Amino acid sequence: MNELIPRQELEFQLYEVLDTQSLCERLRFREHSRETFSAMLDTAERIATDRFANHNALSDREEPVFEGGKVSMRPEVKAGFDAYREAGFIGGRYDFEEGGLQLPETVMTACSGYFMAANPATAGYPFLTTAAANVIRSFASEDLKAAYLPRMLSGAFTGTMALTEPHAGSGLADIRTRALATEGNHYLIKGSKIYISGGEHELSENIVHLVLARMEGAPPGVKGISLFVVPRYRLRANGEPGERNDVTLAGLIHKLGYRGTTSTALTFGDNDDCHGYLVGEPHQGLRYMFQMMNEARLGVGFGAAMIGYRGYQLSLAYARDRKQGRAWNAPQPTDPMVPIIQHGDIKRLLLAQKAWTEGAMALCFYGARLVDDSHTLPDLDAREEAGELLDLLTPVIKAWPSEYGTRANDLAIQVLGGAGYTREYPVEQCWRDNRLNPIHEGTNGIQALDLTTRKLWQKHSRGLQILQQRMLRDFQSASGETRELAIRTGEYLKAFEAVLPRIGQDLQQQTPNALANAHSVLTAFGHILVAWMWLRQATAAETALANAPEGKRTAFYRGKLQAARYFIGHELPLIQRDLDILGRSDAVCASMSEDWF
Amino acid sequence: MNELIPRQELEFQLYEVLDTQSLCERLRFREHSRETFSAMLDTAERIATDRFANHNALSDREEPVFEGGKVSMRPEVKAGFDAYREAGFIGGRYDFEEGGLQLPETVMTACSGYFMAANPATAGYPFLTTAAANVIRSFASEDLKAAYLPRMLSGAFTGTMALTEPHAGSGLADIRTRALATEGNHYLIKGSKIYISGGEHELSENIVHLVLARMEGAPPGVKGISLFVVPRYRLRANGEPGERNDVTLAGLIHKLGYRGTTSTALTFGDNDDCHGYLVGEPHQGLRYMFQMMNEARLGVGFGAAMIGYRGYQLSLAYARDRKQGRAWNAPQPTDPMVPIIQHGDIKRLLLAQKAWTEGAMALCFYGARLVDDSHTLPDLDAREEAGELLDLLTPVIKAWPSEYGTRANDLAIQVLGGAGYTREYPVEQCWRDNRLNPIHEGTNGIQALDLTTRKLWQKHSRGLQILQQRMLRDFQSASGETRELAIRTGEYLKAFEAVLPRIGQDLQQQTPNALANAHSVLTAFGHILVAWMWLRQATAAETALANAPEGKRTAFYRGKLQAARYFIGHELPLIQRDLDILGRSDAVCASMSEDWF
Repeated sequence: MNELIPRQELEFQLYEVLDTQSLCERLRFREHSRETFSAMLDTAERIATDRFANHNALSDREEPVFEGGKVSMRPEVKAGFDAYREAGFIGGRYDFEEGGLQLPETVMTACSGYFMAANPATAGYPFLTTAAANVIRSFASEDLKAAYLPRMLSGAFTGTMALTEPHAGSGLADIRTRALATEGNHYLIKGSKIYISGGEHELSENIVHLVLARMEGAPPGVKGISLFVVPRYRLRANGEPGERNDVTLAGLIHKLGYRGTTSTALTFGDNDDCHGYLVGEPHQGLRYMFQMMNEARLGVGFGAAMIGYRGYQLSLAYARDRKQGRAWNAPQPTDPMVPIIQHGDIKRLLLAQKAWTEGAMALCFYGARLVDDSHTLPDLDAREEAGELLDLLTPVIKAWPSEYGTRANDLAIQVLGGAGYTREYPVEQCWRDNRLNPIHEGTNGIQALDLTTRKLWQKHSRGLQILQQRMLRDFQSASGETRELAIRTGEYLKAFEAVLPRIGQDLQQQTPNALANAHSVLTAFGHILVAWMWLRQATAAETALANAPEGKRTAFYRGKLQAARYFIGHELPLIQRDLDILGRSDAVCASMSEDWF
Repeated sequence: MNELIPRQELEFQLYEVLDTQSLCERLRFREHSRETFSAMLDTAERIATDRFANHNALSDREEPVFEGGKVSMRPEVKAGFDAYREAGFIGGRYDFEEGGLQLPETVMTACSGYFMAANPATAGYPFLTTAAANVIRSFASEDLKAAYLPRMLSGAFTGTMALTEPHAGSGLADIRTRALATEGNHYLIKGSKIYISGGEHELSENIVHLVLARMEGAPPGVKGISLFVVPRYRLRANGEPGERNDVTLAGLIHKLGYRGTTSTALTFGDNDDCHGYLVGEPHQGLRYMFQMMNEARLGVGFGAAMIGYRGYQLSLAYARDRKQGRAWNAPQPTDPMVPIIQHGDIKRLLLAQKAWTEGAMALCFYGARLVDDSHTLPDLDAREEAGELLDLLTPVIKAWPSEYGTRANDLAIQVLGGAGYTREYPVEQCWRDNRLNPIHEGTNGIQALDLTTRKLWQKHSRGLQILQQRMLRDFQSASGETRELAIRTGEYLKAFEAVLPRIGQDLQQQTPNALANAHSVLTAFGHILVAWMWLRQATAAETALANAPEGKRTAFYRGKLQAARYFIGHELPLIQRDLDILGRSDAVCASMSEDWF
C-alpha cells in the first residue's frame, strides 16, 4: 500500500464530479489555482504518509497513559502534530491576513482525508483545535480572539469542546456545570464533563476548553446555557501561558478504538478557582456551540468515509495478492489457484465497500462545497440557498457515512478472513476506530431526530425544495445508461416525498410513531442522497469515457459505473422497507412496552 | 445483571416452542425427566456464573502469552475448565456406560448457552474437546478410542481441529501437510497449520490434535486427504502421556476478540519425528472431519446467538437504568428525565436485538432438536428425514446467527452510547468476540456457497421439501393474529421458491451469477427461516396467553408477540432486494472486472 488514497480518486471527486477549479474564480480564492490545491494535497499526503500512518497501529497498541501527574503518549504523536501545524493546516481555511492559507473547505476536506485515512486518532488533536478556533473567531470578543486565536492557529494552543456531562449524556438541556459571575472579567466555573477528546496531553503549551455552563438564574433547558473559554493555563499579561487554572483530569477513558486520542473526564473548579471567560452573549452558548458541532458533524462523516475507504483499499490489496481456491470456470484441484478477488462473493464484499465509501465520500465533498458556496458565492441568495441545503444535509452527512463506513470495515475484515480477525493486520483497527463515529458529535439516533423533526420542515421545507430541484436537474441531464439509474433514483425520491405528509401528520398530532421510526427516515433519505451521488459520479465517468483518447486506461471510470449500478441496483431497493414503515406509520417500535422486553 | 440468561427464555424455547419433554419418552432418554434437565441447567448456570463470567473481561485484558517455552494464562481459566469437566459436561451427550450423562443435544445446547453467554473464550477449550472426541468415537479404531476417549471425556486431555494451512485458508483441497507411512503403527506428519484454537495451553495433561494431511500418492484435492490423531505427548504403555511429540508452537496469533482462547500456528515434524495415527480409512479425512465441522458449525451459530443475546440483556439493563432526556409527550426541561428505554429509537435498537438473537436462538434449538431426532426417533425414516433437514439448515444455522448476532452487539453499543464505546462496559467485548463467528468453521461466504450449490439441491431437494411441509403445517395451524404473520411469511417462502429455478439454471449452465449472488440466497433463506421461528414463538406465546390464569404476568408473552411483529414487519421485507437480485440473475457482482476496482 504505497498510496493512502489513490490521487485519481480525489481528483475525480474534486474536479470531475464537483468542478472545484471554478472556486478559483471567486474573490476569496483568486490567489489559488489547481496547482496550489495540488501542492496542498501533496503536502498533506506526504505528512500523512510519513508522520501519521507511521504510528497509527503503534499509538493504538500503546495508548496514552496517565502517570506521574501527566498524560504520556508515544512521541510520534507530537511529531505528527508538529508537522501538521507547521505546514499551516490548522489555519488552512483562514484569511491570509490572519496567517491562514485562505483555502476552500472543499480542498481542506480533501487534505484532511489523507490524515483521516492515515491516523484518525492523531488527526483528532489538530482537527478539534481548528473547530474550537472557529467558534472563538465567530463569536468571542476581540480581546478573547486576540489572546487565543493566533496561538491556536499556530498549534501552540490546542482546543476541545466540553459539552457532555456524566449524568446527562446526549441531553444537553440537563447540564449542571455552573458559571458564577465575579468582579473581574472572568466567571468561576464548577462542574464535571466527560468524553472530552484531547482534554489532556502534552502536545501543546495550553489547552483551550470550550465549556457549556449555566449562569445563576439562567432559564431551564437549552435556553439557559452559556459558552466559556476555559484554558488549562491562565494567560499572563504577555499572552503566554501562566499559572495552572483549576481544571483537573479526573481520569482517562479507555476506548474500544481511536485510542491515540485521549478521552477524558475533566473536573472544573474542584478548588473553586476555575476561571472561565464568557464567549459572546449570555444564554447563547448552545447556538454558538452548534456552529462547532455542525462543522464537527461534517468532519465526523468524512472521517468515517475515509476510515471506511482505507479499509476498502487495504482489503482490495489483500484480495489481489492472496491466492486461494479455484476460478468458478476452472475448479479442478489441478487447475491453478487464483487471487481471491476473482471469487464472486469477494467481488460483492469489495463492491459494497466501494459503493458505500466512495458514495459517502462524494456526499461529504458535496457538503464541503456547500460550505464554500454558502460563504463565497457572489450572489447572496445563492449563498443562503447553499446554507439551507447544507443545514438539511448535515445530519445525514454525519450519520450515513458513520453507519456505512463502519459496515464497510466489517466487510474488509471478512475479505481477509482469519487474517482480518488478527491484530497483525490493520483492518480490525479501522473497524474499531470507525465505531466511534455513529456515537460522537450527536449519536445517529439524535441525527435521525434532527432530520425527522426539524431539518425536513424548517423554513417551510426550503432545504428540501432546493434539494429536489438540484436532483431533478441531474436526473434530467443523465443520458446513456445513467438515464436508467436516474429513473430508478427518481422513483425512490418520489416514494420518499409521498410518505412525508404522513410523517408530518404524526409529528403534528404528537403521536410517537414518527419519532420511533426516525431511523427509517434517515436511512431512506440517506440512501436516496447517496444514489444521487452515484448518479453524479456515473455521469462524470460517462463523460470521461466519451472523451477518452484511444488507448487511455478507462478501468477507473468503468469501475465507477459498475459501483453506481451496484448501489442503485443492490442497495437502494433496501429502503422500500423503510418507506413502507413510514407510509403506514408503523407502530411496532413505539408501542413496545418497557416490561415486554 | 444477576442472571446470565433469564430462565424463562430458556424454558420457553425448550418446553413451549419445542416440547423438549417429549424426548424423555424415547428409549435413549427414558432415565431423564424435566427435573434432571433442570438440574443440569442449574449446574450449568452456577458454574457459568461463578467460574466463567468471573474472568470474561479479565482474560480478554490479560490474554495468554508465550514465555519461557510455555503458554501462560490467567489461572481462572483453568479453574473454569476444571469446574466444567468435573461436572461431566464434556461427555454430557455420551452413553451412561461410557461415563456420559446421555443427555439430549437440545438440553446440552441449552447448558452450553450459559457458558457462551458467560465467557465464550474459556468455553472454547471444552467445546473443542467434545467435538474432537466425537470424531474419534465415530471413526477411529478401537485401540485409538480406548487410548484417547476416556481421557478426553474426563477433560484430562483436550482436543483441537487442525485443518487450515497458512497458504490455503478456506481451500482445504490445497493442504500440503504430509503423512509418511512407517513400519510401525504410526505415520510421520510434516507440515504447518494456522488458526488452531486451543492448540497450546497448560489446561490439560495432553492435547489431541486432529490433523488433516496427505499420504504419499494420494489423489489431488479433497479426495486425497486423511485424518490423523496427533498428540502433543505420545502415550506410554499405561496410557499416560509420555515423551513430547514433535509438534511445536510457531507462535500465538493475537486476535481482535475471543482472546482467552489461544489461537496458534503449529508446526508438525520440524525434526521429522511427529507421530500421527490414522483415523479410519485413508483419504476419508475430510468426510470424517466434516462430522466435527458440522457440529462445530451448529455450535458457532448458537454461540453467536448467545453472545448477541448477552449484549441485548446488558444493553436492556442499561436502558432501564439510565435516565436521559424527556418523554416524547412531556418534553419540557421542567418535566422529569426518563429512562432511555422510553425513547422510540432505543426501543427499536432493543427490539432489533431481541428479534435477531431470540430468533437465532430458536433456530439453533430447532437444529439441536433435529440432531436428537436424527439419532433417537423410533422411526428410521423419520430419523433420516430429520438428518436431511439438519443438513440443509446447517450452513444457515452457522451463518445467520453469526451475522445478526454481531449486528445485535453493534446495536448494544449504540444503546449505551459513549459508555458502550469504552472498555469500562462489557458490550464492546461482546462485539469483538462475536466478530470471529462469521469467519471460523467456514466463512459465511463458504456457507452461502454450500447452501446455494449443494444443500438446496442434494437428493433432489429432499431437505427443502421436508422443510416446506413443516413450514406449511405451522402456517396452517396459526390462528388469531399469528395467522396474519403466517400469511406474510408464506408469501416470502413462495417468492423464494419462485427464484429457485433461475438459480438452478445458472448453476447448470455454469454461469457465475448464482455464485456471486450466493449471499442473497443465504440472507433470503435465513430470514424466511427466522420468520418461521418467530411464527412458532408467537404461536406458543398466544397459547400461553390464552391459558394464562387471571393476574398472571403476561408481559413475557406479549414481548414475544411484539418481536414477531417486528421481525416479520421490519426485517423480513428486506429480502425483497435479495429475491429480486436472484430472480433477475443479477450480473453486477459477477461481471465486476478486477481492474475496475
